[in-house]
Amino acid sequence: MKQNGFYAQSGGVTAVINVSACGVLETARMHGDRIGKIYAGRNGIIGALTEDMIDTSQETDEAIAALRHTPGGAFGSARYKLKGLDENRAEYERLIEVFRAHDIGYFFYNGGGDSMDTAHKVSQLGTELGFPVTCVGIPKTVDNDLPVTDTCPGFGSVAKYVAVSIMEAALDVASMAKTSTRVFILEVMGRHAGWIAAAAGLAGKDPGSAPHIILFPEIPFDRGRFLKRVSDSVQRHEYCVVAVSEGTRHPEGRFLAEAGTRDAFGHAQLGGVASTVAGLIQSELGLKYHYAIADYLQRSARHIASAVDVEQAYAVGEKAVELALDGHNAIMTSVVRTSDSPYRWHIGHVGLEKVANQEKMMPREFITEDGFGITEACRRYLEPLIQGEDYPPYRDGLPCYGGLRNVAVPAKLGD
Amino acid sequence: MKQNGFYAQSGGVTAVINVSACGVLETARMHGDRIGKIYAGRNGIIGALTEDMIDTSQETDEAIAALRHTPGGAFGSARYKLKGLDENRAEYERLIEVFRAHDIGYFFYNGGGDSMDTAHKVSQLGTELGFPVTCVGIPKTVDNDLPVTDTCPGFGSVAKYVAVSIMEAALDVASMAKTSTRVFILEVMGRHAGWIAAAAGLAGKDPGSAPHIILFPEIPFDRGRFLKRVSDSVQRHEYCVVAVSEGTRHPEGRFLAEAGTRDAFGHAQLGGVASTVAGLIQSELGLKYHYAIADYLQRSARHIASAVDVEQAYAVGEKAVELALDGHNAIMTSVVRTSDSPYRWHIGHVGLEKVANQEKMMPREFITEDGFGITEACRRYLEPLIQGEDYPPYRDGLPCYGGLRNVAVPAKLGD
Repeated sequence: MKQNGFYAQSGGVTAVINVSACGVLETARMHGDRIGKIYAGRNGIIGALTEDMIDTSQETDEAIAALRHTPGGAFGSARYKLKGLDENRAEYERLIEVFRAHDIGYFFYNGGGDSMDTAHKVSQLGTELGFPVTCVGIPKTVDNDLPVTDTCPGFGSVAKYVAVSIMEAALDVASMAKTSTRVFILEVMGRHAGWIAAAAGLAGKDPGSAPHIILFPEIPFDRGRFLKRVSDSVQRHEYCVVAVSEGTRHPEGRFLAEAGTRDAFGHAQLGGVASTVAGLIQSELGLKYHYAIADYLQRSARHIASAVDVEQAYAVGEKAVELALDGHNAIMTSVVRTSDSPYRWHIGHVGLEKVANQEKMMPREFITEDGFGITEACRRYLEPLIQGEDYPPYRDGLPCYGGLRNVAVPAKLGD
Repeated sequence: MKQNGFYAQSGGVTAVINVSACGVLETARMHGDRIGKIYAGRNGIIGALTEDMIDTSQETDEAIAALRHTPGGAFGSARYKLKGLDENRAEYERLIEVFRAHDIGYFFYNGGGDSMDTAHKVSQLGTELGFPVTCVGIPKTVDNDLPVTDTCPGFGSVAKYVAVSIMEAALDVASMAKTSTRVFILEVMGRHAGWIAAAAGLAGKDPGSAPHIILFPEIPFDRGRFLKRVSDSVQRHEYCVVAVSEGTRHPEGRFLAEAGTRDAFGHAQLGGVASTVAGLIQSELGLKYHYAIADYLQRSARHIASAVDVEQAYAVGEKAVELALDGHNAIMTSVVRTSDSPYRWHIGHVGLEKVANQEKMMPREFITEDGFGITEACRRYLEPLIQGEDYPPYRDGLPCYGGLRNVAVPAKLGD
């Protein structure tokens, strides 16, 4: 008796979350003798809660293959965190009810730490309610902050985007500094962990090359030392390039730029740290600045995705299906690194309880002693993740990003 | 008696200004029997005024060839405008003095409208002072605002970057809109002319697709109509993607976001229009927003340069040398379009007096009647300019951008 599967995307999407979807769907199609249809949640887990699911069996093989080079979330994602079992047991029960109605025995949840927590609870409650569901998490976060897995698919491509972009902008600033902009600031994502900011450091292999300063969430912002460093850099190189994480904080813990609003997960909505830092440079040093805010561009930049990241994003999806069919439950697929150089990796797995609701910060030894740069150890870790280019096909000068039909599965339950 | 040449980059650099340099230098090397060394201005025209020139003959053929895939300005550029002949005749005389001392009979000036004015005056004064200099302008501006030439090298690559980026970000926003960001704003360059903002429109070929709103400098900002349009788009599509030009103005002429400072050309320094627009959406419509500011990333993004733009940037440099050697003076090379589809072009030339200090705005018929989008005529004009990809070589996951030795020419004059 083969059961169906349910796949959902969760949280902020990435340039390669659809690559993982492609891995899940193509692998499930190869095992049509053991697994039924794969339904996808329209707008993530919300699609299961509202019984608004997409029948992926209605998509052609070509459409599924095109997911491999298409950014965004093909079925819709959601910033929606299920509360604890005690607080909102009804929501979990509803999930199981929908799964039961559609004979869904496999739950593939593609997200970060919050999502792994949800998958874990669904696995527990299904058993408790007499409808066991095999729950397999598929890691995804541009922030690279999931524990255990060597890296999170999505991160390598942001890392490559940020490193390439700051390298290019630095060449621009360097050539103009004599008469124009002296300080250039690139604001990047990374609420609590400085991995993306660290990736900017990949651009500066040679001593003295940009970026001259990286501001990490892990290192409390020291106004005086920062301004001195900017000033020194301008004196020495004529210009200064700064990469600043949106999560950079004052010593007392407050973000440099809090917008004052919170998202559905209760996280503070950030934005504008670049203008805060620029304003400081303007008022204290009187230097001409420019700043860029990469925002969503960085996490959707499939056009400059890392080939390694694409390969891993596919592999964590593919392996999730294989492990589920082999009877593994309550696990997340993970990337296991066995060598830095040459870079070697394979896909492993880890119990969901070990990754749920945890964040992996940058180790202190990855940040230089002065707090403004990355160490050789960090470079050895990061460099393999941005290797290779995996360009999408183009037509009329633009990438041919795929679209799905997203046909609804007829509902069987009421509200 | 073969004379030397002087090449200088001017104003904001682009992803392909070095491609034009490559065209000049490679072509001059091919005509070593008719033209001597090419000296480049260190930091643009300032290098000539201070007799700080770079001897490009010291660079290998490989280093010159690498300019073809390297963004920024390889010799340094400058925001430095020579004043009128009456106001500052001494500066022009100094230029001629330096040219005479180094036997420079050819002046190749790679820049925008201000630079063409300078080249024109140098041509006039050289003759007047008995040291005739053949002056040939090479068009460059990301703003695409030079008259006569069909397009300006540099623009096609920004256009491609902006169209690709907003297409990618729109996929991200579309997949998250149900529970997260409803409005995404991308701020792009273009102080007075909306060409770059228009390029965002290339991403939205199908009706209803993003960007849903483009704000042009040519169309006075209408607060009420804009907010209604945002609201309608969110209602119809669940989300709204906006491309806003930094040069967007209030009806009375004031920029939406003036930073209050001015650059060396006396132009107002802009920045932050995205946050102004976002703030308006937040306060009036209460919608969750995100915004990106592409800033220098857009004009240095050689990694996603348009192949057509690269080819044209080379050709305007190559042809400048050929025309100069054929005795043409006081001209600028230009791109002449002979057909939209299939796209056909060749390099022509135009008298400097026709392009100096002039700006080419978007024609009103390129903007839809409602002022928020581009017309089919605009699309027919823009689409050929972003055709083809011209990827740089990569090593260790990053582009191999070239660097020059930039050896100084020994000075012959004092200050």
